[in-house]
Amino acid sequence: MLVKKLKETFEQYDGQSITLQGWVRTNRNSKAVGFIALNDGTTFSNVQIVYADSLENFEEVSKITTGSAMEVTGKLVCTPDAKQPFEIQAESISVLGLCDHDYPLQKKRHSFEFMREIPHVRPRANTYYAMFRLRSVLSMAIHTFFQDRGFVYVHTPEITGNDAEGAGECFTVTTREDAKYDKDFFGKHAQLTVSGQLHVEPFALTYRNVYTFGPTFRAENSNTTRHASEFWMIEPELAFADLADNMDCIEEMIKYCINYCLEHAKEEMEFFASMIDKECIKRVTHVANSNFERMTYTKAIEYLEKAKDQFENQDIFWGMDLQSEHERYICEKVVSGPVFLTDYPKDIKAFYMRVNDDNKTVAACDLLVPYVGELVGGSQREERYDVLVNRMKEIGMEQETLQWYLDLRRFGGCKHSGFGLGFDRMLMYLSGVANIRDVQPYPRTPRNLIF
Amino acid sequence: MLVKKLKETFEQYDGQSITLQGWVRTNRNSKAVGFIALNDGTTFSNVQIVYADSLENFEEVSKITTGSAMEVTGKLVCTPDAKQPFEIQAESISVLGLCDHDYPLQKKRHSFEFMREIPHVRPRANTYYAMFRLRSVLSMAIHTFFQDRGFVYVHTPEITGNDAEGAGECFTVTTREDAKYDKDFFGKHAQLTVSGQLHVEPFALTYRNVYTFGPTFRAENSNTTRHASEFWMIEPELAFADLADNMDCIEEMIKYCINYCLEHAKEEMEFFASMIDKECIKRVTHVANSNFERMTYTKAIEYLEKAKDQFENQDIFWGMDLQSEHERYICEKVVSGPVFLTDYPKDIKAFYMRVNDDNKTVAACDLLVPYVGELVGGSQREERYDVLVNRMKEIGMEQETLQWYLDLRRFGGCKHSGFGLGFDRMLMYLSGVANIRDVQPYPRTPRNLIF
Repeated sequence: MLVKKLKETFEQYDGQSITLQGWVRTNRNSKAVGFIALNDGTTFSNVQIVYADSLENFEEVSKITTGSAMEVTGKLVCTPDAKQPFEIQAESISVLGLCDHDYPLQKKRHSFEFMREIPHVRPRANTYYAMFRLRSVLSMAIHTFFQDRGFVYVHTPEITGNDAEGAGECFTVTTREDAKYDKDFFGKHAQLTVSGQLHVEPFALTYRNVYTFGPTFRAENSNTTRHASEFWMIEPELAFADLADNMDCIEEMIKYCINYCLEHAKEEMEFFASMIDKECIKRVTHVANSNFERMTYTKAIEYLEKAKDQFENQDIFWGMDLQSEHERYICEKVVSGPVFLTDYPKDIKAFYMRVNDDNKTVAACDLLVPYVGELVGGSQREERYDVLVNRMKEIGMEQETLQWYLDLRRFGGCKHSGFGLGFDRMLMYLSGVANIRDVQPYPRTPRNLIF
Repeated sequence: MLVKKLKETFEQYDGQSITLQGWVRTNRNSKAVGFIALNDGTTFSNVQIVYADSLENFEEVSKITTGSAMEVTGKLVCTPDAKQPFEIQAESISVLGLCDHDYPLQKKRHSFEFMREIPHVRPRANTYYAMFRLRSVLSMAIHTFFQDRGFVYVHTPEITGNDAEGAGECFTVTTREDAKYDKDFFGKHAQLTVSGQLHVEPFALTYRNVYTFGPTFRAENSNTTRHASEFWMIEPELAFADLADNMDCIEEMIKYCINYCLEHAKEEMEFFASMIDKECIKRVTHVANSNFERMTYTKAIEYLEKAKDQFENQDIFWGMDLQSEHERYICEKVVSGPVFLTDYPKDIKAFYMRVNDDNKTVAACDLLVPYVGELVGGSQREERYDVLVNRMKEIGMEQETLQWYLDLRRFGGCKHSGFGLGFDRMLMYLSGVANIRDVQPYPRTPRNLIF
């Protein structure tokens, strides 16, 4: 029986014999009686197994090491006055797989750095055990949100021939060792995608509302707590939607995901609140209950100029790229809650964003939230063929390889908008876990590729 | 308003004015009246728009080309006696984006080969329009099936340093042009994953029941209708589960997915049955209602030997790898339905499969289904450290890079099983679409990398 099911229905088994499998979290005992905290992987908290020296193999059982796999058959007894709602009084226990003495997860607390060296074992340590279930729950929240609203899920490609976007920071995909790409597997240079957006736009112009959810890659040589070389992104795209519609969708999605995780990963969120970041549940609950404000970039610069003494980077001017400290000031001090900054200078934003009538700004929106700053970036896309071609020329982009993308503007184009949510960042935001290396099963970063 | 919503509730709008956006599928008209078939992307079938010369811009509207984007406001009128349940009598129509005359989707029927050259436009053609929604629906079927049963979704890595498995058929991931991998981004040779199985096993030994669902890659230089260089795989892994448990899970999953798609992609499946493969709904319904039989490989060889005259490859012997014609004979002629072949010779199966007591076969299972042959491959995993080490030696595998995988057997290992489902193959199976290039948004195959 799965413990998850059992926890929902244990009362009906009171006094009955049941069988569980799982792994030993702790095993303590005296000469006559012992207690095993058993976890079968289906819930965060353990089940208490009580065993006595009446057990045939009491000696063997009393020596079961932490991490070992076992099976127990025993009587379920409800314990309404104890911490755990029931316990199992063992009738028989079989050891399925003993854990060797060099098992790296011993009782003492290990550093995150140490844990990152053993990605095959660390999921069993509490922080990771909570995190990787939260990761699964948040994934399902994303899919449920979009599918319930009729969005079509699109698998945009991982391998792409579009060198246009930020080629310097891309991984090359090859079967050769001599960089002769014309003789390579695909007959030309191939690389790993940095974003599915361009590839998903044709689908928005077909299905109206679509989303991607898959891996993306950056070959950036930066060692920060927020960047990984491989990470998962969600990139929704909405046809017949302007910037305001886009922000409505972002706001609804963020709130939905928070509430879904608080409901479906309750024990895990409580663990994070007790061990990692006391404020995390309060913080995300506040966001789920807030109206997300909207403020232009220009207005934000005014606020920042007035407060410039408070920043490390005090060079505040219209046209600058905001640093994390500036973003956090706006949402934490000015707004005290989530806020969309909109209408950024076009020179600091991507070529595909729609140019506003002032010809200086674009219809972009970044969602800033307290504690992390930017969580989502989006924009209305430039749907006017001529404007887009001119914009590409202006910044020196080659038109040819993206002619297919431009053609979407000639083949029944319409206003459309979209955004990108970094899935791993959202996990950091929910849990308070500070390093992206601790929210991914096998993090990939510069000079770091374990297994 | 979204047409999907409208189709569920149109009766309450009878006689009322509503607004729709969408793309023109056809526009035919006489001097006084015209009809537009409008599709907004949210359902397979179109909405009929009727417009008359009382329309201010009747001239303009009568010239709207196929593929154009438009908005219509008009009166919804229920038409219980007509083919479509309602129509919209236009009060105003605005053209949002005209489609140029070089739009590649003209009325005539185009070949699949032609369509593959224009992946940015082909989603609007009926076959692809049905397929990519089915793709989204089947994705959600997979997630719903596993999450409802408490399985944890694991994002196994795309970039891996495990050169051990089938290195010859892998793509290298690099930022260099000189193959000096020790100076490369990760400080060593990196490649794209061919399977998430090894990486997901540690999670099964933590969460009990887990699954992956993500892209995998093969640099195989084979041009068949069933192989792509990039494809999505589902790889569930179940702890405390033997081969029989594994087959139970596979059977339940396949049936669930079929029923989910028949329910949630009804119009799309009906399209496939009418235009691509008359038998497809009958075939998958039959499978969903069948008991999946189980037969040993050894027994299958007996059947094949008796029928060898019927095959192109008539060299039937115990130890051979079955060809597609043999697999189809077993399920189509011998069983007349889905069948698991089990206990294959160990020499034709992977190193991690559990060796049976006869020391000649392994606890593997392949699910064969009529029409396509193999749909799922799975096995019980070798959980005995010494047996696994010996097996690796026997076939000349290096132990060192997989020591972490071996260690799982020393750190509370237990019996466990898992399988792999090729997501794209499942789509081909459901729809009857015969080429994998027509079920993927942007197929990647040798010398073929469009956009």
